[in-house]
Amino acid sequence: MPSSFSNRLTAAIRAKRTPVVVGLDPRWESLPDTLRHAVDETGAGKAAAYAKFCREVIDVVAPLVPAIKPQIAFFEELGPLGLMSLATVIAYARQCGLLVIVDAKRNDIGSTAAAYAGAYFGKEAAWPADALTVSPYLGDDSLAPFVDAARQSGSGLFVLVKTSNPGGGQFQDLVSEGKPLYRHVAAHVERLTSEDVDATGYGSVGAVVGATYPAQLAELRAAMPHAWFLIPGYGSQGATAKDVAGGFDASGLGAVVNNSRGIIFAHQRKEYAHFGPDRWQSAVEAATKEMIAALAAETPAGKLA
Amino acid sequence: MPSSFSNRLTAAIRAKRTPVVVGLDPRWESLPDTLRHAVDETGAGKAAAYAKFCREVIDVVAPLVPAIKPQIAFFEELGPLGLMSLATVIAYARQCGLLVIVDAKRNDIGSTAAAYAGAYFGKEAAWPADALTVSPYLGDDSLAPFVDAARQSGSGLFVLVKTSNPGGGQFQDLVSEGKPLYRHVAAHVERLTSEDVDATGYGSVGAVVGATYPAQLAELRAAMPHAWFLIPGYGSQGATAKDVAGGFDASGLGAVVNNSRGIIFAHQRKEYAHFGPDRWQSAVEAATKEMIAALAAETPAGKLA
Repeated sequence: MPSSFSNRLTAAIRAKRTPVVVGLDPRWESLPDTLRHAVDETGAGKAAAYAKFCREVIDVVAPLVPAIKPQIAFFEELGPLGLMSLATVIAYARQCGLLVIVDAKRNDIGSTAAAYAGAYFGKEAAWPADALTVSPYLGDDSLAPFVDAARQSGSGLFVLVKTSNPGGGQFQDLVSEGKPLYRHVAAHVERLTSEDVDATGYGSVGAVVGATYPAQLAELRAAMPHAWFLIPGYGSQGATAKDVAGGFDASGLGAVVNNSRGIIFAHQRKEYAHFGPDRWQSAVEAATKEMIAALAAETPAGKLA
Repeated sequence: MPSSFSNRLTAAIRAKRTPVVVGLDPRWESLPDTLRHAVDETGAGKAAAYAKFCREVIDVVAPLVPAIKPQIAFFEELGPLGLMSLATVIAYARQCGLLVIVDAKRNDIGSTAAAYAGAYFGKEAAWPADALTVSPYLGDDSLAPFVDAARQSGSGLFVLVKTSNPGGGQFQDLVSEGKPLYRHVAAHVERLTSEDVDATGYGSVGAVVGATYPAQLAELRAAMPHAWFLIPGYGSQGATAKDVAGGFDASGLGAVVNNSRGIIFAHQRKEYAHFGPDRWQSAVEAATKEMIAALAAETPAGKLA
């Protein structure tokens, strides 16, 4: 039996003393010029550039953070070659000691959900993930195959509960039986994760809760005391360290906070422009350290240090 | 400007005189023995067998039906090689004159959704789709990039509204402001599709509505008069031709009805056992014709003949 996801995530956060997760969202138009100019602007060239870029980001952040979160959409956009690049990036990240949260927001019914789970969990997985994001719209029997596969492989899930985008509330905030839809989903997540809580105090089923809704973040922390939170929306989407403080438990655990563009494309931020295009990795390092420091100063994650 | 999805779907349905869609859900354990024994039981072997199986299903159904619906999860389970097989299957289907509805249930926010859309719509698409299924949980700004990309490429979308699985109602049936969540999603689909209704009477944004809930199917037909319906759940999931009748408009258009296992694995059904394992394609043909006849007899699709 492999060690549980919660155990491994807790150990990784304690080892790095920070809950910062670096999101790998390679976008062709934002890659450093040196990487773009080194390849042909074809699918194969872009796929090679994405792999190289992500490996070079990993080289910088592996000593600093517990996990990376590749966004599969950007690799999928390039077709099978892009997805091969993703496999090499995942292997490299694991080799560097990072946990890998694959952001795929997959879902389907019954045996189809089991097929998706097989792509990310277990020994045959093409893109082996420590955790996977999934969507709840299809209900409990669509989540069950993912939960089973995650538990069997010692992996975790993050179910979309309250997302960070401006339109997230259109359906998620609809009130039924006295509470919004996202609270109904949260109640289901708490039920699932309560089934396999371990010594860390958390189980294998977590929740995606956007940093851009600080009040709901604290409300949902109380509603899902045994669920890990994956918090997107920090940085480029507008949320600050203060905004995410409510997502943590009193000891500074219980949440990881993702930043994608604000870190991997830090060379485009004016405060890091002085590094120049060739020292883009130094910009990544500086932006990562800045976020680590901000979370340590402004949230319970400071207790990890 | 390419012809609209609704135009092309209408023409294809009229040409074949049936709204039957054949779902391509290759599952290793259900493939005909001859195909399984011809390859090694490795990822590469399975990917090759899936491509061959799907092409041979297409050979049988291309003269009979307007469209196929590959379920990407089964290809994704095999990794990049599986997804290369899917690309060859899609190309072959298009060459045979079939429309291709890729069942991917994708979704994400903003520019990430645009990256997904680029994988399925437009000239650079790795898996060019006439239509794609998407999930609504993230709200309007997550659907917008898919809608834009679909329109630009003359393609369509099917948004999950009321799914066919037993647990679909857990969240979809929650009542808010006097109507269930699925009706809120339906209202949004109708708004979107109303923006580009053409001479067919339908627009480019459709809805997934399960055959397993006949009453809601008729209710949703009235609620989304300009949306094409993709109706899963026929056959193996228990729904009959009578159950899907409410999904059509008075002229027999407005809906396509999918059957996956009941057709592609018809060689496993006892009523077609007499074909024997080597004549599995004859079982596929017989099952397709049986479903076409049932819909013609029991639904408004009979008016297409």
